[in-house]
Amino acid sequence: MKDIFERIKENPGPLGQFADYGEGYFIFPRLEGPIGPRMKFQGKEVIFWSANDYLGLCNHPEVLEADAKAAAEYGMFYPMGARAMSGETEQHLQLERELADFVGKESAYLLNFGYQGMLSTIDALVSRHDVIVYDSNSHACIVDGVRLHMGKSFMFRHNDMDSFEKNIKRATKVAEENGGGILVITEGVFGMTGQQGKLKEIAEFKKQYSFRLLVDDAHGFGTLGKTGAGAGEEQGCQDQIDVYFSTFAKSMAGFGAFIAGNKEIIRYLKFNLRSQIFAKSLTMPMVIGGLKRLELLRTRPEIKAKLWENVEKLQKGLLDRGFNLGNSNTCVTPVFMQGTPVEATLLVKDLRENFGIFTSVVVYPVIPKGSILLRLIPTASHTDAEINETLAAFEAIHDKLVNGVYKEQAEKLLAEQGLEFKPL
Amino acid sequence: MKDIFERIKENPGPLGQFADYGEGYFIFPRLEGPIGPRMKFQGKEVIFWSANDYLGLCNHPEVLEADAKAAAEYGMFYPMGARAMSGETEQHLQLERELADFVGKESAYLLNFGYQGMLSTIDALVSRHDVIVYDSNSHACIVDGVRLHMGKSFMFRHNDMDSFEKNIKRATKVAEENGGGILVITEGVFGMTGQQGKLKEIAEFKKQYSFRLLVDDAHGFGTLGKTGAGAGEEQGCQDQIDVYFSTFAKSMAGFGAFIAGNKEIIRYLKFNLRSQIFAKSLTMPMVIGGLKRLELLRTRPEIKAKLWENVEKLQKGLLDRGFNLGNSNTCVTPVFMQGTPVEATLLVKDLRENFGIFTSVVVYPVIPKGSILLRLIPTASHTDAEINETLAAFEAIHDKLVNGVYKEQAEKLLAEQGLEFKPL
Repeated sequence: MKDIFERIKENPGPLGQFADYGEGYFIFPRLEGPIGPRMKFQGKEVIFWSANDYLGLCNHPEVLEADAKAAAEYGMFYPMGARAMSGETEQHLQLERELADFVGKESAYLLNFGYQGMLSTIDALVSRHDVIVYDSNSHACIVDGVRLHMGKSFMFRHNDMDSFEKNIKRATKVAEENGGGILVITEGVFGMTGQQGKLKEIAEFKKQYSFRLLVDDAHGFGTLGKTGAGAGEEQGCQDQIDVYFSTFAKSMAGFGAFIAGNKEIIRYLKFNLRSQIFAKSLTMPMVIGGLKRLELLRTRPEIKAKLWENVEKLQKGLLDRGFNLGNSNTCVTPVFMQGTPVEATLLVKDLRENFGIFTSVVVYPVIPKGSILLRLIPTASHTDAEINETLAAFEAIHDKLVNGVYKEQAEKLLAEQGLEFKPL
Repeated sequence: MKDIFERIKENPGPLGQFADYGEGYFIFPRLEGPIGPRMKFQGKEVIFWSANDYLGLCNHPEVLEADAKAAAEYGMFYPMGARAMSGETEQHLQLERELADFVGKESAYLLNFGYQGMLSTIDALVSRHDVIVYDSNSHACIVDGVRLHMGKSFMFRHNDMDSFEKNIKRATKVAEENGGGILVITEGVFGMTGQQGKLKEIAEFKKQYSFRLLVDDAHGFGTLGKTGAGAGEEQGCQDQIDVYFSTFAKSMAGFGAFIAGNKEIIRYLKFNLRSQIFAKSLTMPMVIGGLKRLELLRTRPEIKAKLWENVEKLQKGLLDRGFNLGNSNTCVTPVFMQGTPVEATLLVKDLRENFGIFTSVVVYPVIPKGSILLRLIPTASHTDAEINETLAAFEAIHDKLVNGVYKEQAEKLLAEQGLEFKPL
């Protein structure tokens, strides 16, 4: 027998092992000042590329005014408890009607938080006789939802349609044996690499196989498709998505989430989502603020146009300079470089300290060993000057990386200080 | 094989089966107007007993001002993303320090939402070699957390210490075999019946058995204990709680939650809670508003005193009139009556329509067949007049219930309209 806390001391977990080295800088960094393309990090101004606020709505005067007015009228507690108990208001229903309309579905239901909302959506849709088939790069909330499932689940290789077909075949066999059904789960946009999920290709398989499709479109909602209705609209297969999910934590510059689909299924989910039946309704300021944000999405197409102007400038600039953006076909702009984790940390530090550019950085084990991924999230608020300054900085640090400057620094540091770097 | 949506059509779920009958009235009712002891339901004023806003802080002018000011300055999106990525601010850390101090723990960590926070806390604390032992009446978020566990879990009969010991013995045997540890989970206050969890008794077992104790004190925080630090303080065993959890959705009149414990374990959890690592940080207005609420909890003991004055008036009044309050030893005031679900619905309708009293109602299968539970949540804001009016109304409807008035109505209704009532 072993005390749980003793084990925790011995194994601080995949991120925890770097706590002493990276906390406050590489992980849990503290940004200051109003959110926007320029924020303060450790007392110095940086050009900030990690906000997910694609449309720049978080500081839009009309949004701030709506949020503030609603908070002054309702505070943060309204409406009381869970939707089923005392947490339903006309404004919640109105936002649901408008969201459904916006994404081209019959009906929508608000979720008090995206993570637990997705988890419960998966949980409520499947019985133990059903089979889940999901993309291997799915977000943690999908993975946790699948973990709750007591029946079989099969993971297909990320966006790989051969692997998908192999797994949908296996799933069909199991479902036939069990008298169950199949739920396929993927994302509209994979947030780390910027690749769209192959929704259209997956939907095509409906002609051969029987399944329902649940799509997490967190990064697609508001950014993709002619009207901003997301990856399904962009690919022309929105009607094939049986349950559409998006968070408000990206383009909607808030929190909470929603699901949309046909009337019957959304009503079923309203009565059966455990995290919604047994926890507090989405707070009123976010509902009233959400109505304002959605109005801006609908009525100000120039904001999305400006976002894409910036995306194109940034991505073209990077491509012109020979950078590898992987297979991104969305706003998410991943820049892949080759280097060790130690080089990555020195590069990112250089980028922040000497070039004043703040991006997130990802290394092994999230991506393959030897790769460095700097992720940029362009927004409608970034200026040409900020884009150009960033392009120049990326050119400079990349030169230093390929010329071995960080490698040399790393070796010196290791020799001098006897520091041991584990793979970050 | 069966289409998932077809199955859903056939089985709308435990609550969904009553959707056509009860929606908008018994389930998903819409209350209107500012939260408080008097709200509007279907156009008529009712005395409202379902707010969980124990201290009446939701409308406190200082709270509304703090919420509104923070929303005006930061909007609802700040601070950007997940704590680990870009969502940590000095205010988050300050609220954590103050919460830790308030509940007498070394350290605390904010959670973006209580439900998923609890789920991930359980998930992060146990490995597959560990065993979970938990109370049978645990809240859905605990149950879902346990469902994620891949090792063994044992449920003990609600607050039954014989059953607890039997299960902790079984757990010890399994943990010894597996080289794992034991996590015990219970609640400070069971929200449906108002009974405190037997924390002190459970903690006593630590002398004989090795385990760690996680307590969900949603209804205890702010209402119990000399300083309001909750059920552990009330029972004099706060130091025996290894991980203390409370939501902000009750006494704190908000949303979000926190965990508290020793420094090392909270730091571990900060780096390992999946719903926090992979989802947005608690929104700034709730953090700044949370600091204000906590200040009021600390500096205005008269608010808690007023709450308890109201609790005692209400509970004494009910007991004096012969009502059965079960074993509540907290503010939660359950009133148990005997009757069928049909009688329950007619009684609640009468109570709302003709007496202007709004309470939640619970029947089988949440509680035993033949029982009706009306749950009242007294707050510091209720007045003597509201309490007295409610007592008189309860007396009247109870008389009608025992005299068969609702039974007669039910029979008439069933005969006239051919309605079929399933057990609600």
